[in-house]
Amino acid sequence: MNTFEEVVEAKGHLIDSGIMSQILDRVIEHKCTFEIEKFLVGKTNDDYSLARIKIQSHSSESLKELLDILVPLGCYLAEEQDARIEPALGSGRVPDDFYSSTNYRTYVRLSGNWKLVQEQRMDAVIRVDPDGPRCGKLRDIRKGDLVVCGHAGIKVVREFKDRERKDFTFMASEISSERRVEVAVRQLAEMLHQTHAARGKIVVVAGPVVVHTGGVEGMCKMIRGGYVQAFLGGNAIAVHDIEYALYKTSLGVQLETGMPAHEGHRNHMRAINFINQYGSVAAAVEAGALQSGVMYELVKSKVPFALAGSIRDDGPLPDTICDMVEAQARYAVLLKDAEVVMILGTMLHGIGAANMIPSWVRTVCIDINPAVVTKLSDRGSSQTVGIVTDAGTFLHLLKEQL
Amino acid sequence: MNTFEEVVEAKGHLIDSGIMSQILDRVIEHKCTFEIEKFLVGKTNDDYSLARIKIQSHSSESLKELLDILVPLGCYLAEEQDARIEPALGSGRVPDDFYSSTNYRTYVRLSGNWKLVQEQRMDAVIRVDPDGPRCGKLRDIRKGDLVVCGHAGIKVVREFKDRERKDFTFMASEISSERRVEVAVRQLAEMLHQTHAARGKIVVVAGPVVVHTGGVEGMCKMIRGGYVQAFLGGNAIAVHDIEYALYKTSLGVQLETGMPAHEGHRNHMRAINFINQYGSVAAAVEAGALQSGVMYELVKSKVPFALAGSIRDDGPLPDTICDMVEAQARYAVLLKDAEVVMILGTMLHGIGAANMIPSWVRTVCIDINPAVVTKLSDRGSSQTVGIVTDAGTFLHLLKEQL
Amino acid sequence: MNTFEEVVEAKGHLIDSGIMSQILDRVIEHKCTFEIEKFLVGKTNDDYSLARIKIQSHSSESLKELLDILVPLGCYLAEEQDARIEPALGSGRVPDDFYSSTNYRTYVRLSGNWKLVQEQRMDAVIRVDPDGPRCGKLRDIRKGDLVVCGHAGIKVVREFKDRERKDFTFMASEISSERRVEVAVRQLAEMLHQTHAARGKIVVVAGPVVVHTGGVEGMCKMIRGGYVQAFLGGNAIAVHDIEYALYKTSLGVQLETGMPAHEGHRNHMRAINFINQYGSVAAAVEAGALQSGVMYELVKSKVPFALAGSIRDDGPLPDTICDMVEAQARYAVLLKDAEVVMILGTMLHGIGAANMIPSWVRTVCIDINPAVVTKLSDRGSSQTVGIVTDAGTFLHLLKEQL
Amino acid sequence: MNTFEEVVEAKGHLIDSGIMSQILDRVIEHKCTFEIEKFLVGKTNDDYSLARIKIQSHSSESLKELLDILVPLGCYLAEEQDARIEPALGSGRVPDDFYSSTNYRTYVRLSGNWKLVQEQRMDAVIRVDPDGPRCGKLRDIRKGDLVVCGHAGIKVVREFKDRERKDFTFMASEISSERRVEVAVRQLAEMLHQTHAARGKIVVVAGPVVVHTGGVEGMCKMIRGGYVQAFLGGNAIAVHDIEYALYKTSLGVQLETGMPAHEGHRNHMRAINFINQYGSVAAAVEAGALQSGVMYELVKSKVPFALAGSIRDDGPLPDTICDMVEAQARYAVLLKDAEVVMILGTMLHGIGAANMIPSWVRTVCIDINPAVVTKLSDRGSSQTVGIVTDAGTFLHLLKEQL
Repeated sequence: MNTFEEVVEAKGHLIDSGIMSQILDRVIEHKCTFEIEKFLVGKTNDDYSLARIKIQSHSSESLKELLDILVPLGCYLAEEQDARIEPALGSGRVPDDFYSSTNYRTYVRLSGNWKLVQEQRMDAVIRVDPDGPRCGKLRDIRKGDLVVCGHAGIKVVREFKDRERKDFTFMASEISSERRVEVAVRQLAEMLHQTHAARGKIVVVAGPVVVHTGGVEGMCKMIRGGYVQAFLGGNAIAVHDIEYALYKTSLGVQLETGMPAHEGHRNHMRAINFINQYGSVAAAVEAGALQSGVMYELVKSKVPFALAGSIRDDGPLPDTICDMVEAQARYAVLLKDAEVVMILGTMLHGIGAANMIPSWVRTVCIDINPAVVTKLSDRGSSQTVGIVTDAGTFLHLLKEQL
Repeated sequence: MNTFEEVVEAKGHLIDSGIMSQILDRVIEHKCTFEIEKFLVGKTNDDYSLARIKIQSHSSESLKELLDILVPLGCYLAEEQDARIEPALGSGRVPDDFYSSTNYRTYVRLSGNWKLVQEQRMDAVIRVDPDGPRCGKLRDIRKGDLVVCGHAGIKVVREFKDRERKDFTFMASEISSERRVEVAVRQLAEMLHQTHAARGKIVVVAGPVVVHTGGVEGMCKMIRGGYVQAFLGGNAIAVHDIEYALYKTSLGVQLETGMPAHEGHRNHMRAINFINQYGSVAAAVEAGALQSGVMYELVKSKVPFALAGSIRDDGPLPDTICDMVEAQARYAVLLKDAEVVMILGTMLHGIGAANMIPSWVRTVCIDINPAVVTKLSDRGSSQTVGIVTDAGTFLHLLKEQL
Repeated sequence: MNTFEEVVEAKGHLIDSGIMSQILDRVIEHKCTFEIEKFLVGKTNDDYSLARIKIQSHSSESLKELLDILVPLGCYLAEEQDARIEPALGSGRVPDDFYSSTNYRTYVRLSGNWKLVQEQRMDAVIRVDPDGPRCGKLRDIRKGDLVVCGHAGIKVVREFKDRERKDFTFMASEISSERRVEVAVRQLAEMLHQTHAARGKIVVVAGPVVVHTGGVEGMCKMIRGGYVQAFLGGNAIAVHDIEYALYKTSLGVQLETGMPAHEGHRNHMRAINFINQYGSVAAAVEAGALQSGVMYELVKSKVPFALAGSIRDDGPLPDTICDMVEAQARYAVLLKDAEVVMILGTMLHGIGAANMIPSWVRTVCIDINPAVVTKLSDRGSSQTVGIVTDAGTFLHLLKEQL
Repeated sequence: MNTFEEVVEAKGHLIDSGIMSQILDRVIEHKCTFEIEKFLVGKTNDDYSLARIKIQSHSSESLKELLDILVPLGCYLAEEQDARIEPALGSGRVPDDFYSSTNYRTYVRLSGNWKLVQEQRMDAVIRVDPDGPRCGKLRDIRKGDLVVCGHAGIKVVREFKDRERKDFTFMASEISSERRVEVAVRQLAEMLHQTHAARGKIVVVAGPVVVHTGGVEGMCKMIRGGYVQAFLGGNAIAVHDIEYALYKTSLGVQLETGMPAHEGHRNHMRAINFINQYGSVAAAVEAGALQSGVMYELVKSKVPFALAGSIRDDGPLPDTICDMVEAQARYAVLLKDAEVVMILGTMLHGIGAANMIPSWVRTVCIDINPAVVTKLSDRGSSQTVGIVTDAGTFLHLLKEQL
């Protein structure tokens, strides 16, 4: 009955990563059957395992769908073949069976050699350029570009959760509001120290709640201390930061006293109007008109930043990038070679950034809403760990450790 | 000591709306003092009240700040004067004491006459054109445009919660997950019926969760029934709707069976690639290639739609507006003269739309997260009422009533 | 048509408290009509207002229902009469129109004199004892006890939000996770200082999340510093505190390292077994067997505590009160004369305590879930203010201020 | 260096259940090392796997702690020995190394024979009675009772997620508010049908939110249809159900119209007073005084129920069990042999019930707050699946399917 079959192999920490379990689950869910032809188990924590699995299905369609799912999990066809390369049909148009990338390290077999894919990111097309394969956005594909299709000749290497990293246990923890925030902050501070000392790149992605909850001082200290190599956000964090620098309010709340200034939404519009007269945030800083805050420190420390616009923006500031294709491009440039990405109180820009980074970048999401981190994980950014607390308190605690 | 003073008046349902209480609270919070010189209370529910209040402060600065807050609450200077009009200083540049608008009905006194402000929306500048005052975005202001500044000659009319609307009690309810969803849906259905019968405009703002939670069929029925005059969303709802129409999955989940297709994120990229070959959603519908779903029904029923891009988009679809200034302009056009706005499972586009509409538009936000509605209210869209449930279930219940 | 009528009066800060607005809203909602016969408005913030309102209804039943709601809001019948007193019909049995108390200060008119009700709490019966009226639980009523019925002769005094309390602005704030936690903590610390200096009573109500999130040290410091006069909780906080003192884990998590000890639920059972051999927590402390933690400090500082059992308890500890009637009685004793009540991470015991305290006790609820505070407010404990953060971080910040 | 060692074996669906991965993770986390001496993998989905693992540690203490965690995961000492049995030291007092049970099926080796443990539940002691081993609460242990200690002679059988259950895919889904509620309800209805047809036992655990959200009618239909064999709750669900039956309000909200009856908390006290005159709910039903609602249907259909008291109860009703030890005992009796347990809108009673049931009982938790289900899972009730929606809507949808 199940007359269609394919033999796949997988290699790595198959058991302790849980990958083997996932592979078999997926086979069953697709109403296919499996037979494990070979299974060499790593004897100790340092050894790899190897599995060779025969998969059978009642239809070639269903088998293809299953392979669509197994290849990203690290399975590759046992019989080694080159990847199939097809020319793009037009701008942003590729054959329907194009390979859609994950954020895991990927190799493609070309002319008998396995080549590492460059600029790894998820939901991309793998374009084969003269100098090798690389991830590209569908929208950047042009007619005739060569793209990888089908399942042959593709190997995905899934990192397993790095169990040896004894120092950063919080990275192994599940998301929960019942965990000890202090411990996680202490370990994160240590990670930032190490990255900083090794001149690694730290990127901060932040939402306006950093300002509302009193995190400006902490963020400024991070920037001055050299712990931020790039800063990503939207129009709102910049507007509220500048509002706070100029008028000591944030969305009209007087941050020093907590006194609610009901309906006092006017100051954020004043802040935009204020910057408009200088033409940019940097110009306002240089003119001595803006003298404190996150944006001020970024300019002073020459940390590059990108503010992406959104449908809910007021203003926006002259620095805000209104075109989303351009904003994504700028985000991608600033995220390149990041080693640690900290996402503070912003689901929108957090997902935006997480979409662009490979799986091996350490991503930490700080949010008072546990659902935000869960959502990041659901989208495939499973490397993301979360600390459930408000951004202001987090930065206060972190400041003490840096 | 408090030698700076100003006498203001307010008129309307001051007590039952809670406005009078708010006015006095704000005075005290600003460390100013008040004396109620006159207070004529409406005897019955139909009568207006009138208050005349002398406010004293120790500094002119503090008095100005207080007036910044009292004017939006409906207070106006007792001594009638014309509004102060100043020319804009440049593109997107106005004097620092420009009046920042609310979403409440506003009148401006010009040459002794009170004129209704057109295109009322919040966080705008009031520009005085030859044919009268209107709200304008700061970014659209050009050098020399005349804008309203200061506090004189401005009257804001706050609607109070419409207590007579016995039929729509859910609109008076506080947001809570402990309320009866069925009752709220029944009343909302009745409101839609009445609006539809009177040829009023209903605008839907929807996020992709409508698709994930199984709301496509219900939404399609609404569109076919003529209950949707404009549709606002982002790239994601369109992509996942088309993914579902073509492949019966949504973010890789098989919606009919609930079977999770883990890591099966490929189909939404296929959907984008599919539409790319036609050049637009409408072209795909016309070619007979897209044959069902929300986007299909919108095209078939000739309901105008706007898809705003965002930093987290994949693709995007050719129909998605990538420039945020353009997207906001398109949203504003489609929201014009709306009588009912339904926001379904999207905070981002919900706030984007709510920013643009005047306070008298009935806005209903359906979200499983009570915090979303609270956030909408916090931003000043106090007319927004919430129904706490998931979009799919909501549309299932609503479908039964339409 | 509306032939049934009643004239009521209300006195106090009717406008700035929002009470007047509420009274009129309730009349309309009950489809009754009102006529404001007199309204003397307080000229300044220090003056009271007085309202005299004629209410008309189409049925005597509906008028009675409305009065059920207006009397707790501070309205009293304009025509002064004694309260109606009826004998209880049996144990826990009173006439159906008994007056159900609020937590606001209440006076009852007896033989022409207004008498203050003792032991004010909500959802109680007012029993008239020889020495005056007092609140009593329905279950404690015995046949023949005299209880207040109907609406005549009852005056409820609603405190309005104390606008003069400039120092504690956080108490006026709405619940939001977008506020600055540090400011609220600083002000709360100041409130605790003042209460402590004046030898006022501070009661802590705490859940096990205090232990899980690393708050033990902070709580111990509060106890040693004399900032806790009584401690209320359940079985779980004591078990996990002792588990942590003995084994350095909490629900099996190693708190110092954050290392998750999956499935390591055994230690909390060991802790119970450990205490069982001494017969009580106090005995284990005295024997030198338990040497640290919250329970240890309570015993050492002779702070009385009450642990209420629940359906989900393991053990329970010998100290846990398994009978709920007894546990409520013990809670009530410890809450008597409290000036500040801090509720930390427990909805169950928080509502239990809040049910028992009068409205003028300052109640602060610290919880990472904003819904918990909202729920406390919904139940009528509107005096409760919330700080949205996790208990461990909160106690860490508070510790720095004490 | 690691001179302490132990060889364990595990058998079953080790890979597809993820158990093997967990075992190895725990070894590493405890800084021990492993060597897989044997690993026979099941070739197909129907075959078991067998693993034999040598574990080494630097201390005997750390090895013991690790075994505390591995035994519940299904590992047993490779060298077969009888379980070690020790006499209890007193009432509620056992040796410190007693075995604390899980809710998974467990066998104990006595005199060379593996015996199934009766009355399996978590956090219990295994007592060896003359007729065999059974789980017992620590508090029920008496001096001299024989209890299982250490790690030898204990086998825990972990069920893996039942992948063949194609009909109930929702049971395999992760908790998310972005899933399709309708599909889950349809499958749950089918499960209830099958259980009902096979005369299996269905137990409902419900909180008062069932009444507030309009679920009374749906629940009544379930009871009348024979889909409820036992009903567990607290005082509140009964009080509010009776309040609704008598006065059509729930916490003062008129459920039919959704009209909020602010401050109208009096009716729930009237309901208690009403029942008090009859002495019990059943007596009120028999007297014809209570004629509708959930409690009415339970009495009429002779479905046994248990109402557990809590510290936050008003009243309580005469039927409410105030003693928690007695309440737990009554819950345990009603849960015995349950096949399906439905938990509706109550974390407190849900955890109470979940603590008592073995892992093979299908448990479904319906709650609008995803955190409730997560919390149930965290506590070890990993068999629990969740449907994120409000109870009223859920019962409305379910009613259509039954």
